[in-house]
Amino acid sequence: MKLTQTLKLSAIAMGLSLSTASAMAAAPSTPIVSSNITKEEVLAAQKAWGDAIVKISATYDKKGIEKAKKLAAGIIDDTYAYDMGPVLFKPTLAPLPVNIRTTKEGALSYFVGDNENFPSDGGFALKGWTDVESKNAAVQLHGKTAMTIGNVMFTDSKGKVTTVDKTWGYIKDDEGNVRIILHHSSLPYSTN
Amino acid sequence: MKLTQTLKLSAIAMGLSLSTASAMAAAPSTPIVSSNITKEEVLAAQKAWGDAIVKISATYDKKGIEKAKKLAAGIIDDTYAYDMGPVLFKPTLAPLPVNIRTTKEGALSYFVGDNENFPSDGGFALKGWTDVESKNAAVQLHGKTAMTIGNVMFTDSKGKVTTVDKTWGYIKDDEGNVRIILHHSSLPYSTN
Amino acid sequence: MKLTQTLKLSAIAMGLSLSTASAMAAAPSTPIVSSNITKEEVLAAQKAWGDAIVKISATYDKKGIEKAKKLAAGIIDDTYAYDMGPVLFKPTLAPLPVNIRTTKEGALSYFVGDNENFPSDGGFALKGWTDVESKNAAVQLHGKTAMTIGNVMFTDSKGKVTTVDKTWGYIKDDEGNVRIILHHSSLPYSTN
Amino acid sequence: MKLTQTLKLSAIAMGLSLSTASAMAAAPSTPIVSSNITKEEVLAAQKAWGDAIVKISATYDKKGIEKAKKLAAGIIDDTYAYDMGPVLFKPTLAPLPVNIRTTKEGALSYFVGDNENFPSDGGFALKGWTDVESKNAAVQLHGKTAMTIGNVMFTDSKGKVTTVDKTWGYIKDDEGNVRIILHHSSLPYSTN
Repeated sequence: MKLTQTLKLSAIAMGLSLSTASAMAAAPSTPIVSSNITKEEVLAAQKAWGDAIVKISATYDKKGIEKAKKLAAGIIDDTYAYDMGPVLFKPTLAPLPVNIRTTKEGALSYFVGDNENFPSDGGFALKGWTDVESKNAAVQLHGKTAMTIGNVMFTDSKGKVTTVDKTWGYIKDDEGNVRIILHHSSLPYSTN
Repeated sequence: MKLTQTLKLSAIAMGLSLSTASAMAAAPSTPIVSSNITKEEVLAAQKAWGDAIVKISATYDKKGIEKAKKLAAGIIDDTYAYDMGPVLFKPTLAPLPVNIRTTKEGALSYFVGDNENFPSDGGFALKGWTDVESKNAAVQLHGKTAMTIGNVMFTDSKGKVTTVDKTWGYIKDDEGNVRIILHHSSLPYSTN
Repeated sequence: MKLTQTLKLSAIAMGLSLSTASAMAAAPSTPIVSSNITKEEVLAAQKAWGDAIVKISATYDKKGIEKAKKLAAGIIDDTYAYDMGPVLFKPTLAPLPVNIRTTKEGALSYFVGDNENFPSDGGFALKGWTDVESKNAAVQLHGKTAMTIGNVMFTDSKGKVTTVDKTWGYIKDDEGNVRIILHHSSLPYSTN
Repeated sequence: MKLTQTLKLSAIAMGLSLSTASAMAAAPSTPIVSSNITKEEVLAAQKAWGDAIVKISATYDKKGIEKAKKLAAGIIDDTYAYDMGPVLFKPTLAPLPVNIRTTKEGALSYFVGDNENFPSDGGFALKGWTDVESKNAAVQLHGKTAMTIGNVMFTDSKGKVTTVDKTWGYIKDDEGNVRIILHHSSLPYSTN
């Protein structure tokens, strides 16, 4: 654990929170250690994921599949917690029996395809996405983990919007990074 | 909080856990308080949910919609944490814009229908389910919360099996009950 | 669990936290459920404990031991989590072998004495305390639990100040109450 | 975070816990990720701390102060979470105003002395301790943190036993190490 800087920042954030001019007046310099995720960190993690998808799409368009794969691999390392153990990841377009991707290999294949173990993967992040917007229905904060549910809207290069139902679970690691431990995405149910 | 009995049981469970004939020998009677969910509690909660769906179906068949609704309302109170705040619930067959049911009313409508605010709801638990099986791909335990992902197989009265992708989130309340705080269910992706 | 109101307030508090005019602008009405203790709740719990000690002292002075005992019993129910299981409580003036009070009976005896099972107890809260001040050296926030260490200064009716080393542990229950689960108090070490 | 191996072991431990021959039969290979501390890990951390004190004493006796200091510094790095932020540490023999040691420097000085910023420190771990025994009154487990209270008995080279009141708080880091975040120790209260 190398939390010193992260937690000092965290302490500042908490020290200033909402609250309590009076409490702060009474205890102006009390150091705070917090292992909790904040709502702001959750929203930032959602935005970072969407930005990453757009970036992979752009990299694929401009620089080809190898650069896109390398970028995606780094993004998965940074944003998912696969080094912690199995991630609970059900991607939008992943059919049975490869519907759940508890390993990094499965996640990478979903985003950039080109893996014979997952022949149905076309590379979700290669589809020319230009914008990703998140809309949360609710957020839950439980210590170092958080969960959200809502919709995410993907816009492609023609302006067409695809909406998915999306659930996220996050964990804050010892370095203060918020990482994905759960990601269930699905196309909205339709009777058509 | 009235945790005394629950936690004594919990203490017994923990005291006996795997482990540590030697530790127990060294500290035979140390009382343990734990607010953590165990894997066994998670599996029991999954089974209880499946059994409840079967029971609502049977009640509807034998006793009609009013009895089924009453039963379902009680089951939701017991198994979901709606009294704690918004639950992150995306039911399998719930289309936009009523795809997410953060309130008890929305959950009840999904299971037994008959609510004009959710006209698309046919009553999922009324479909004659005779068996529900869960298969977890992975389980995460984080203090008083837990998350799982996997598939659930519903068998109807004709023996037809419907498989869904399902993510659960649970919380252990102060009475020691494990309640649902997150439930994302979706039909498997298919290119057909 | 009956968290609705508590957590709505909690949601408001979190929604407004520090933070993020921009985040709030982007998601103005996202409901937040949080099971985490905040620093402000910890400071409020410390103040409430000190105020309670002063109130028991005043009640004893003005209304006698029976009223003081009744008041203390109610305060222990409200501020300590004995209904959850053993509390980790080592009071300042409790000698071996009754140094640790994991039960409500032991806590009550420490504060108001008059219990033959704890003959060394003189009734700490009966000592005419007129003011209690807390000074934290550091605070740690870990989900629904928090811990602090520091000094507490008790002033008696003559203006004499007694300083103790004090460690607190707190838990936030399902109703949103912050309760004491750990309390280690000791006289400062002195070579005299 | 590099939790893979640690958590696989953890998964094995949990998989085998108490429990549920039947649950395991039903889900023989479900991977489990757990961030929770177990009672066994807490007891092991207590034993490791006691063993470390004895080892520092022996090193001082046999190899002198410099070796003892170096050993103590490494032990503090391994067993306390100072790299995470302020640790809530009130050592037994630390008088006001240096009673609380939220920094590693303060902890090291307490154990091996020889620091002009803490002139009252004689070096607690240099006192020839030959045995350290812990006796817990109760243990609390809350996710990745745990707390205990009880007594610890230190035996010196003459066989004299010193008993202290001791409260511990622990955190499990991302590598699966259990580290001290809270340590309040005090001599038992005595009217003599």
